[in-house]
Amino acid sequence: MYDFYSDTKSLPTHEMLCAIAEAQLGDEQKGEDPTTRALEERVAKLLGKEAAVFMISGTMCNEIAVRVHCRPGDEVILDETAHLLNFECGGPSALSGVVLRTVKGDRGIYSAKDVKHSVRPNSRYMPKSRMVLVEQTANFGGGAIWPLETINEVVDEAKKHDLITHMDGARLMNAVVKTGISAAEYAKGFDSVWIDFSKGLGAPCGAVLAGSKEFIEKAWREKQAFGGAMRQSGVLASTCLYALDHHMEQQSSDNQLASFIGEKLLEVPQITNVLPVDTNIVIFDLDDTAPTAQELVNEMKQRGILLGAFGERRVRAVTCLNVNQKAGIELINELTDYLS
Amino acid sequence: MYDFYSDTKSLPTHEMLCAIAEAQLGDEQKGEDPTTRALEERVAKLLGKEAAVFMISGTMCNEIAVRVHCRPGDEVILDETAHLLNFECGGPSALSGVVLRTVKGDRGIYSAKDVKHSVRPNSRYMPKSRMVLVEQTANFGGGAIWPLETINEVVDEAKKHDLITHMDGARLMNAVVKTGISAAEYAKGFDSVWIDFSKGLGAPCGAVLAGSKEFIEKAWREKQAFGGAMRQSGVLASTCLYALDHHMEQQSSDNQLASFIGEKLLEVPQITNVLPVDTNIVIFDLDDTAPTAQELVNEMKQRGILLGAFGERRVRAVTCLNVNQKAGIELINELTDYLS
Amino acid sequence: MYDFYSDTKSLPTHEMLCAIAEAQLGDEQKGEDPTTRALEERVAKLLGKEAAVFMISGTMCNEIAVRVHCRPGDEVILDETAHLLNFECGGPSALSGVVLRTVKGDRGIYSAKDVKHSVRPNSRYMPKSRMVLVEQTANFGGGAIWPLETINEVVDEAKKHDLITHMDGARLMNAVVKTGISAAEYAKGFDSVWIDFSKGLGAPCGAVLAGSKEFIEKAWREKQAFGGAMRQSGVLASTCLYALDHHMEQQSSDNQLASFIGEKLLEVPQITNVLPVDTNIVIFDLDDTAPTAQELVNEMKQRGILLGAFGERRVRAVTCLNVNQKAGIELINELTDYLS
Amino acid sequence: MYDFYSDTKSLPTHEMLCAIAEAQLGDEQKGEDPTTRALEERVAKLLGKEAAVFMISGTMCNEIAVRVHCRPGDEVILDETAHLLNFECGGPSALSGVVLRTVKGDRGIYSAKDVKHSVRPNSRYMPKSRMVLVEQTANFGGGAIWPLETINEVVDEAKKHDLITHMDGARLMNAVVKTGISAAEYAKGFDSVWIDFSKGLGAPCGAVLAGSKEFIEKAWREKQAFGGAMRQSGVLASTCLYALDHHMEQQSSDNQLASFIGEKLLEVPQITNVLPVDTNIVIFDLDDTAPTAQELVNEMKQRGILLGAFGERRVRAVTCLNVNQKAGIELINELTDYLS
Repeated sequence: MYDFYSDTKSLPTHEMLCAIAEAQLGDEQKGEDPTTRALEERVAKLLGKEAAVFMISGTMCNEIAVRVHCRPGDEVILDETAHLLNFECGGPSALSGVVLRTVKGDRGIYSAKDVKHSVRPNSRYMPKSRMVLVEQTANFGGGAIWPLETINEVVDEAKKHDLITHMDGARLMNAVVKTGISAAEYAKGFDSVWIDFSKGLGAPCGAVLAGSKEFIEKAWREKQAFGGAMRQSGVLASTCLYALDHHMEQQSSDNQLASFIGEKLLEVPQITNVLPVDTNIVIFDLDDTAPTAQELVNEMKQRGILLGAFGERRVRAVTCLNVNQKAGIELINELTDYLS
Repeated sequence: MYDFYSDTKSLPTHEMLCAIAEAQLGDEQKGEDPTTRALEERVAKLLGKEAAVFMISGTMCNEIAVRVHCRPGDEVILDETAHLLNFECGGPSALSGVVLRTVKGDRGIYSAKDVKHSVRPNSRYMPKSRMVLVEQTANFGGGAIWPLETINEVVDEAKKHDLITHMDGARLMNAVVKTGISAAEYAKGFDSVWIDFSKGLGAPCGAVLAGSKEFIEKAWREKQAFGGAMRQSGVLASTCLYALDHHMEQQSSDNQLASFIGEKLLEVPQITNVLPVDTNIVIFDLDDTAPTAQELVNEMKQRGILLGAFGERRVRAVTCLNVNQKAGIELINELTDYLS
Repeated sequence: MYDFYSDTKSLPTHEMLCAIAEAQLGDEQKGEDPTTRALEERVAKLLGKEAAVFMISGTMCNEIAVRVHCRPGDEVILDETAHLLNFECGGPSALSGVVLRTVKGDRGIYSAKDVKHSVRPNSRYMPKSRMVLVEQTANFGGGAIWPLETINEVVDEAKKHDLITHMDGARLMNAVVKTGISAAEYAKGFDSVWIDFSKGLGAPCGAVLAGSKEFIEKAWREKQAFGGAMRQSGVLASTCLYALDHHMEQQSSDNQLASFIGEKLLEVPQITNVLPVDTNIVIFDLDDTAPTAQELVNEMKQRGILLGAFGERRVRAVTCLNVNQKAGIELINELTDYLS
Repeated sequence: MYDFYSDTKSLPTHEMLCAIAEAQLGDEQKGEDPTTRALEERVAKLLGKEAAVFMISGTMCNEIAVRVHCRPGDEVILDETAHLLNFECGGPSALSGVVLRTVKGDRGIYSAKDVKHSVRPNSRYMPKSRMVLVEQTANFGGGAIWPLETINEVVDEAKKHDLITHMDGARLMNAVVKTGISAAEYAKGFDSVWIDFSKGLGAPCGAVLAGSKEFIEKAWREKQAFGGAMRQSGVLASTCLYALDHHMEQQSSDNQLASFIGEKLLEVPQITNVLPVDTNIVIFDLDDTAPTAQELVNEMKQRGILLGAFGERRVRAVTCLNVNQKAGIELINELTDYLS
């Protein structure tokens, strides 16, 4: 079975499992797990921040950042496709009491002007603008990379209004390997930022949230309240360290494979549109004569290929270390065979 | 000073004050204020609901309806111009933990199709669609009246998805006097609805929230938690009863005056656009050669006329029992004199 | 019917109603109601604070003070009998996310030592101690007056730990008229404090919350979010001003009447215990041979006297301007007649 | 270094790490991790419940149970020493808006009568009693075991008042191995219950929450909102399964060792009191002539033995698979040498 459905099922390799066996362990929530601390220090440095904290998921990084940065009644400006709004069960409003104020960006990327128009005037009646969120890469924009210039403009505009800046960097490293711009450079203007290890980096679980020392200290309290504090978390952190050492070039291959698939799809009949492929996500549309997205997904599953339906006639394929060039060619062949 | 700035400063007449002096009073939160109970029963009947509860403001009606109907993490579908989102300090998210999901309607009025597109599929990851909000009339749409047919379609679509329906009827009575459609008819499909007495109806303070007996019983607990429970509230309720008896035709005059102003504005130089005048709100735009909205508002204030700036080049005039035909003519004359 | 059940049903006198008719009115939430502003300024001065804001109830003063002072996860230290914990529907936890940490005081009055023992050490695991609450007089302690010395010690201890201090002054004026210590003196060490007008002061509705300018500005936003902002609130504020001018000596009579009743009760058969009568609340216990509290309350109601059952064998009588010396004598006579 | 400070630092054995290497993995939050599902099914059965869900910590089990069972403003009855109140950063109030109503039990164990007295009458003013919490064993009661009879009485009383019952079973298995009463028997009357794997069971991380299918389905949404949903969590779940298979008898040894230490401590000078040793926790008090608890802890650390100060003159020693009989003898010897 070739899996283009999700990039979150990368299975740990034998070498990665060996890393677990060799990891030094301790009680993480007392700051005594040396492997977790090593990971935190390494990611803090990678992202150019003072401090960092290991979390069980990227969603927890988002939710806790919102809790630390905001008070109930504050407003967060974000693209209407953001993960924070659409795939976290309403957590920001439910757990932190914030209003989510959506902006209609282009492929998940909005502009400094959008920020300007969304900021509330000082008023007793209105929610209080507090934070902007940037999702790098923009998942529902087809893994679209926020250009550094756009990021800098958005950050500058935000700072003008004393807004806090937070980056959801679930796929930041995909952008890094593609553009050669460092993670720290992308993250420079942000008060907080996190990267995920369970997606392209191929570790079983985990994410690391970074920011100032004061921010991380506050995040620790919230982590405790959420029940996110762990014990011998080096079991997981060791795999994340391994991923940083060994899976970075893999992400580059993932991007190349997605790019290859994107080009080939243009020649497949009944496919009308392929979104620009910036990183490891390929989104394409079927014309009116074609089967629906769901029908195509079902048929491809029969043929041993997993894809995701992203709308009536929109399909997503994502690449990670579970799939390779051969799988990509199979995907194109089977699609060409099925469509006509 | 002619006040077209706000319809919330209507001063009680001598007769209304006499109503206070004659009111029977008791402890409202123990259910012992007969005047308040009489008002609640009357409004429940007017809106075609089982029960009702008196509140100190319409905002409290909104906030409490959200708390009763929703759980943290639920999502409320509403127009992007809604009072609930823009003028209640983020209360729905801050106090009830709900996500506010905006729809881009036309003059504050959206369609059944918008509801359909906004409803979330059943998913572990997404906020839970729970409620739709209709604001009748739509304040930021220029007092636009939701047509009964649109309301019914929106309600039908909402019910298809088991959504709760709530009407912010701050200016519902303006629609009623204009269209002749009864308040109960407008409110029929809604699980909860409220009307305001401090706007067109000209009472000093207060609103009444109506719904099923069970809903109102729950609303009482939240009212208590908010500190909204009162004591001898008949002091206020008596003025609301008076307003129902004596100010209804006034609202009709308000609508006519607004309509008259709207027509006359079309002939004033440098005014490019007047939004359709459905009720007692007139919104008009200035062309590029004209002073800005704020400059015009300042100048008119000098001339004894209060208006509101609603944007760079957009101005609002609202009519209530504070202004009459003579004031309307003055307004047109001064605008014509100032603009050219 | 003589009403010793509640001190919240005092009916406005004709003179008080005249005060309404003469009140200057405006839109309160825009700061344009001169009567409300006059009341706020007067109470701020009375309580020795920079600023004040009018609220529809004392409960709203409490709830909003908690919201402004605390963040979710903070802890409030208070007596286990406090109104905030027992009669506000769980509002502090529900609306502000705070933990209520109870102390077992004596007649509702606790000590600096209790504060010291309740303060949490600095810890990632524990709630964060944030605020202490003093209820003057302590309602469930039988209207017990917190001695100034105890208050000062509690405040000093609180400040040592950087805790915020808040006074629920629902019946503070009863203490003032009894002890001759000024309200400002009692309130000196508190970051926020409020007094109620619907109890001993005999106005229909309302309370005023006072504190620093910054605190009151923040309270305004929360008032708006709660829907507590009003319009022509001078209708109510005028009665509060009237009460300050004319009902203060009444509270003194209330205290004297309660004291008289307390003494006489000692001679009534089957009454074993009368709590010390500090102000206008009398709490007494029935012995095992007597009817239950509820039976006694029912019987007295038949005889035209309202009392409150406060436990299996505990009864409360409260005095306010609804009852006078004659009513007090009737109360004693009927109790003596019934009990034996 | 002998560690009697904490039972949460048990290091995985080589065999346990091998279990990880052999585990079948998948995406847990899509229900596709077979190892995690096997663990959930096994624990559900062990606890006699329909369904179960794996969590990263016991604190998350507690916090999520509260969120599912309660609405903001509800009240939870619990012992004043409970972990939920004292070591979860105020999470229940901060994240779920509930009031925590404390009962003063004996060694963390309260009675049906305490429940009866704590339940609120039906009232518009009071918080709503919703849930009782039992912590088995009671950590701050010195690992005290709730007798089955007491549990059943508490549960019966709770059900009389329609209260939900939740068991914090962090150390339930310690009680099970001691009394021979099955986990399912202890958990029978509870709507939800969880056990921890990072304490006596010696796995690196993790806990499993069990209840009805409907409850677990709701818990899943909250887990998602918290960011507690994982990916290849079989990495952790495999160690928990291993612990169930191989570490149960270890808990029995832990209990025996604690019992041995408890007895020997009675003979050590300057130790006045040893709490009854029900399971693996030993709490003892120093007399006035002895060093303080903190001084003793510091000195013992110098001698290679970790203990915990639990008060001015109270010390805790806890046993888990990190310590053995030899360590216990050393502990007694060093204490005897130091104290006199």
